[in-house]
Amino acid sequence: MIGAAFERHGMSARNAALVAAVVAAAERDGAASHGLMRMDGYIATLKSGWVDGAADPVVTQPAPAIVAVDARNGFAQVALAAVRDVAAATTRQQGLAAVCIHDSHHFAALWPDVEPFAELGLIALTVVNARSRVVVWGGRKKTLGTNPMAFACPCSDGPPIVWDQASSQRAQGEVLKARLAGRSVPEGIGIDAAGNPSTDPAAILDGGALLPFGGHKGAGIAFMVEVLAAAMTGGRFGFEDESAKFPGAQTSRAGQFLLLIDPARGPGGDVPGRIASLVAMLRDAGAERLPGDARHHRRVRAARDGIEVEDVAYAKLRALAEGV
Amino acid sequence: MIGAAFERHGMSARNAALVAAVVAAAERDGAASHGLMRMDGYIATLKSGWVDGAADPVVTQPAPAIVAVDARNGFAQVALAAVRDVAAATTRQQGLAAVCIHDSHHFAALWPDVEPFAELGLIALTVVNARSRVVVWGGRKKTLGTNPMAFACPCSDGPPIVWDQASSQRAQGEVLKARLAGRSVPEGIGIDAAGNPSTDPAAILDGGALLPFGGHKGAGIAFMVEVLAAAMTGGRFGFEDESAKFPGAQTSRAGQFLLLIDPARGPGGDVPGRIASLVAMLRDAGAERLPGDARHHRRVRAARDGIEVEDVAYAKLRALAEGV
Repeated sequence: MIGAAFERHGMSARNAALVAAVVAAAERDGAASHGLMRMDGYIATLKSGWVDGAADPVVTQPAPAIVAVDARNGFAQVALAAVRDVAAATTRQQGLAAVCIHDSHHFAALWPDVEPFAELGLIALTVVNARSRVVVWGGRKKTLGTNPMAFACPCSDGPPIVWDQASSQRAQGEVLKARLAGRSVPEGIGIDAAGNPSTDPAAILDGGALLPFGGHKGAGIAFMVEVLAAAMTGGRFGFEDESAKFPGAQTSRAGQFLLLIDPARGPGGDVPGRIASLVAMLRDAGAERLPGDARHHRRVRAARDGIEVEDVAYAKLRALAEGV
Repeated sequence: MIGAAFERHGMSARNAALVAAVVAAAERDGAASHGLMRMDGYIATLKSGWVDGAADPVVTQPAPAIVAVDARNGFAQVALAAVRDVAAATTRQQGLAAVCIHDSHHFAALWPDVEPFAELGLIALTVVNARSRVVVWGGRKKTLGTNPMAFACPCSDGPPIVWDQASSQRAQGEVLKARLAGRSVPEGIGIDAAGNPSTDPAAILDGGALLPFGGHKGAGIAFMVEVLAAAMTGGRFGFEDESAKFPGAQTSRAGQFLLLIDPARGPGGDVPGRIASLVAMLRDAGAERLPGDARHHRRVRAARDGIEVEDVAYAKLRALAEGV
C-alpha cells in the first residue's frame, strides 16, 4: 500500500516499489522516524515537483573501480538498485569499488544501503550530503548538511555489524519535535542566528544552525562527507540546494558516495571470522548493545509476530494510496 | 642528526632517514608532541627489541585495486614509502586503490601519510589501529585503540585540506601530562577501572580507559578503524598487542589502511575546483581556521626563519646521535 501511495503521486511502479521497500524495512525494524512517519514528507516532495518519481538512472563506469550513477533527479534508492549488481561484481573483480551517485534525493535511513552488501560478505561505507544545516570550525553560518554515514561489515557468527549516524550532534527532526512540544533542547546541539550557543529550538531552526557531533572532529567527518558525496560524485553541495524554491519539498538534491571492499581479495585472511572475535571481545568488555542489535531484535520479532501499525497511521496511508 | 640517532639504535640508513623525515616535519609544522619530544619513545622502543628498525617491507598486489604491504614488524612510514609509487599508479589506473599494511608500528602523526597524495591531486583517507585504550558502547573495559584517522583532499586555490584526529576524546598523552602535573582532566574523557566516569588521570590510566569522541558516534568510527586497519589488512587488533612484554616499548604492532581516490577518473569534473568553492563558503561562513591552516602557516614561517630547537632538546638529540 506504501507503493500504491507513491504511484498515485507520480512514481513509476518500479521506483515506487524500491522506495516503499525501504519505508517498510524501517517500520519493520522499529526505526519509526524513517518509517510511515516519512510518508507525508515523501508525498509533499513529490507533489512539489522537486523530485522526479519516475526517474530512470543512468549507470556508467568511468574507471575500472569506479561506477557512476546519474540519478536524474530521482530517489537515491532507485539509483542504488540500478547499480547494485555491477557494483558488487566490480568489487569482487577489483578488490574494491566506489559508487558515485549524483543528482539524487535521499530521504531514508542509510543502513539499508550498506547492509545488503555486508550480507554478501563485503565491507561497505556510504556517505550522503544534504542541504546546509550544520555550522563547523567556529563559523557562524550553516554550510554543511547533517551528512550521514553508514558502515557495515560481515561477521562470521551473526548478522553484519551495521551503524548509521548523522554528522550533526542531533537530527534536525529532534529539534523540530522539541519546538512542537514547546521544550528546549540540551546545550551543545545548536547555535542561534548570531552564532551564539542556544537551547531554543526556534532560534536554532530559524536562521541558526546545528552543531556537528564531537566538536571539530565531527566537523572533519561532515566536511569529508561533503567532499566525497558531492565534489567526488558531481552532485550539488548542501549550500547549492534549491529545495526552498519548491514549497513542500523536504528532500535535498545532492549526492552519495559508496565504498565497497571485498575482504576476500585482500591480505587479511578470514576477515569475517576476525571481526567475530573483535565483536566477542567488545561484548566481553561489557558492551551490552552493539550498533544494529536493537534493529535486528525487532526484525526477528516482526518476522514472528508481524508489524503493528496504529489505526490512525493505517487510515492515513490508505487515504494516500486510494485517494479517499 | 635525528637519522643518526636512529641509526645508532639499530635502524638501517634508509629506514632511519624515512622516520627522521616525519619527526622533522612535525617539528617544522609546530606539532611538538610528534616532533623531537617523541625521540625518547622511539629510542626506548628500538632498544626494547619490540620493533625491527632495519625491517624490509614486502609489497604484493592481491587484487587489481588492492596493494598489500607486510611491514615485517618495522615502522609504518617505511612500509608506506615502499608502496607509495605503486599505490599512486594503481589509483590513477583503477580510479581508486586500497593500501593494506600489516605488522607495522605507527608512532607518528597521520597527516604526513595522506598530505603527499593530495599534493598529487588524489583524495586520501587513512586509519591506524593501536593497543587497547578506549572503551565503547557502554563497555567497562578498554578494547579499541585511540585509532586515528586522517583525510586529505586537493584544493585548487591553495594547499590541500588535511585533517588528522584520534577516535578518542583526548590523546593518551594529554592524560599522562595531567598526571605528571597533578591536574585532573575534564569530565567525559575517561572512566576508572570500575567503569565509572572519572576526572583522575591515574584512575583513567591504571585500569581505566579513555572514551571515544562524540559518544556512540565516535565509537562507531573507532570500531570501523579497527576493522579496516586490523581485520582487513591482516594486522593485529589492539587487544592482541603484546608490547607490554617488551619493557620500554611504546609503539603498537598493528595495521594501517589507506584509501586513495583519483577524482580525475570519477564523474565529478573539476573536483579540486569544487572543493575550493566549498572551502570559500566555509571561510565566508566565519570559520577562521580550517584543519591544517595552523600547520601550513608554521611551515611557511619555518621555511623563511628556520626551526628553533631549544638547547636542552638539542643537547639530548646530540647525545642520542653521538652517544656522548
